[in-house]
Amino acid sequence: MAETTYAKGLEGVIAAESEICRIDGEKGKLYYMGYSIEDLARHATFEETTYLLLYGKLPSSAELESFSRRMRASRDLDPAILEMIRKFPRDAHPMELLQSVISYLSGYVQHKIQHSATCNCRNTLHQVVQLASVVAAWQRFQEGRQYVPPRQDLSHGANFLYMLRGEEPEEYEGMVMDSCLVMHAEHGFNASTFTARVVASTLSTCYCSISAAIGSLYGSLHGGANEKAMAMVEEIGSADKAEGWVEQALAGKQKVMGMGHRVYKAKDPRADLMEEYLVELSRRKGDSTYYDILKGVEKAFRARMEEKGKPIYPNVDFFSGAVYRLLGVPTILFTPIFAIARVSGWLAHILEQRKDNRLYRPKSLYAGPEPREFVPLAQRG
Amino acid sequence: MAETTYAKGLEGVIAAESEICRIDGEKGKLYYMGYSIEDLARHATFEETTYLLLYGKLPSSAELESFSRRMRASRDLDPAILEMIRKFPRDAHPMELLQSVISYLSGYVQHKIQHSATCNCRNTLHQVVQLASVVAAWQRFQEGRQYVPPRQDLSHGANFLYMLRGEEPEEYEGMVMDSCLVMHAEHGFNASTFTARVVASTLSTCYCSISAAIGSLYGSLHGGANEKAMAMVEEIGSADKAEGWVEQALAGKQKVMGMGHRVYKAKDPRADLMEEYLVELSRRKGDSTYYDILKGVEKAFRARMEEKGKPIYPNVDFFSGAVYRLLGVPTILFTPIFAIARVSGWLAHILEQRKDNRLYRPKSLYAGPEPREFVPLAQRG
Repeated sequence: MAETTYAKGLEGVIAAESEICRIDGEKGKLYYMGYSIEDLARHATFEETTYLLLYGKLPSSAELESFSRRMRASRDLDPAILEMIRKFPRDAHPMELLQSVISYLSGYVQHKIQHSATCNCRNTLHQVVQLASVVAAWQRFQEGRQYVPPRQDLSHGANFLYMLRGEEPEEYEGMVMDSCLVMHAEHGFNASTFTARVVASTLSTCYCSISAAIGSLYGSLHGGANEKAMAMVEEIGSADKAEGWVEQALAGKQKVMGMGHRVYKAKDPRADLMEEYLVELSRRKGDSTYYDILKGVEKAFRARMEEKGKPIYPNVDFFSGAVYRLLGVPTILFTPIFAIARVSGWLAHILEQRKDNRLYRPKSLYAGPEPREFVPLAQRG
Repeated sequence: MAETTYAKGLEGVIAAESEICRIDGEKGKLYYMGYSIEDLARHATFEETTYLLLYGKLPSSAELESFSRRMRASRDLDPAILEMIRKFPRDAHPMELLQSVISYLSGYVQHKIQHSATCNCRNTLHQVVQLASVVAAWQRFQEGRQYVPPRQDLSHGANFLYMLRGEEPEEYEGMVMDSCLVMHAEHGFNASTFTARVVASTLSTCYCSISAAIGSLYGSLHGGANEKAMAMVEEIGSADKAEGWVEQALAGKQKVMGMGHRVYKAKDPRADLMEEYLVELSRRKGDSTYYDILKGVEKAFRARMEEKGKPIYPNVDFFSGAVYRLLGVPTILFTPIFAIARVSGWLAHILEQRKDNRLYRPKSLYAGPEPREFVPLAQRG
């Protein structure tokens, strides 16, 4: 390209080709490597999905077994890492800790930076697996409890709940947690994935690139939508107040969290399954308060938008916060869980970036002062 | 912009306006906020330059005094940070540690994420100042020695040498180190600065953004040029072998490190002053081996390029490695020193990004498989 384009925020600019994720916003479809998210979230584990993202194909039984074994063997945390987590100021945010730990971890492995898709990033998957362990350990220490060493006989999602609780979750709960990780593992070029690719394009390590992506996900314009949806549910308090709350929110031009999606014009394909999990978890807990409030909000909001001729649907974040809460996960862990899931997508993008690398090097337009004369300090008054 | 542009690596795309840095590659000029790098590197301290980058103007004496006092008061490391540094695996790279420590530090301060240029990032400058202390502490531990607590009566550059050595550097040495930091404090939209802005655009914290930028600078396509120039000097060994080495390098199509610059078609404006420092340090040490080798390389290489009608000049990295070595700094710290200096520019860009923020959100072009049917694990063989 010989000419120069000015695109603030890189809007409308295609920065790279990618084989990983396809989003069909018109039809409300999401695919990882050609497989629909509905199929993956219902029938594949998080480990299987991670294999798919990193190798571009679904594993055979033998491949999955060996891959899972490696992932599970990397779950336990080194004493130095546990110490970092224990000493991290209690009022600070776990995303800052996660970003820090992932760079620190890179000191613990042999990792040659190779300008190649076959670099050994895929060997231990240390940098993918340990996020869940760090988050669980942080939460345990936060509650003044002991670290729970991981178990190797549980799925990634079930083991995360086990490490949080110190007791094995019900099979259904473990399956739901794992499936939620599958649904959040990848979503194309958002800000955190783009960050991972920018850092990877300098041929930095995958640890450094993933750490940077975590910093990006921590930004309030990126992660955090399901936290806000959950805050809304708590503010409303009971289903009978939902309609009134929506009326008031609309009158005050307040955003209704979790409704509509920048990319999906039709329904977010992950929302249905997330709703199904919320229904079943509510039934098992014998308490459908969250669900009833959310459905009240959805009904009132959709009715109002349909009057204006703007059909709108709930997205994945509308239900996911309530699902996590029914799994016993505190709200502060929602964004860290996003990272625990998305790390597989980040690593896939890092490997893809290295395969056909070009350093990301946009320009800026100078809008500052003209050259000016330096005034020595003594003459500045 | 309604249309879509495909720009691999964002080549030729202007991603934002910026008032911070102007590079006139044709004339070989570099300005920070309108002030030429020659003036700043000769007459301003690193603290003064940091003030300029963050506030857009040179400080008065009173402003500089108060600003320096705050910066110097932030130099000492918390015991938990010292422990992280001490426990970091001895064969890992200090850039990974730096990236980790900067995110971790964010837990130690009150830092509201504010979508505003007046956020309190500029208050303690903890995130700017502590890089030098972390790098010095890492090097001390690497040598099996004790941490040297900072002194508040020295410039940022002189204090760094003091913390490395455990004794006060000569005044000239301290001045040179500080001036080298000024010369590396800012250089427009390179990959690390762009990374800092991408992360900041999500409204993440300045710590998280700076940590990400460090990860980017660690990449071998970004930092590291002066390490390679120094490796060349050591490989050549003595000045009389320089010409033969250059002939051989050119015949083997090997790159001669530190000669020429992607941006500067005329001479890199920082190279002259860096050469001056190298001459004076060599005189003071009574050993001009590095300098003589470098001048031998420069002379032979320029002569050969002029024969081809391609005038070429040394850039700042050609001399800076030798300057650092004569200041007693080991080669592994060259890229970390780049970070110690550039952090001021990163913070200036983070603040500028927040003033008129737009999330960086480029697109990707899908080039992967068409939708395909999911095959259950049991049927995959």
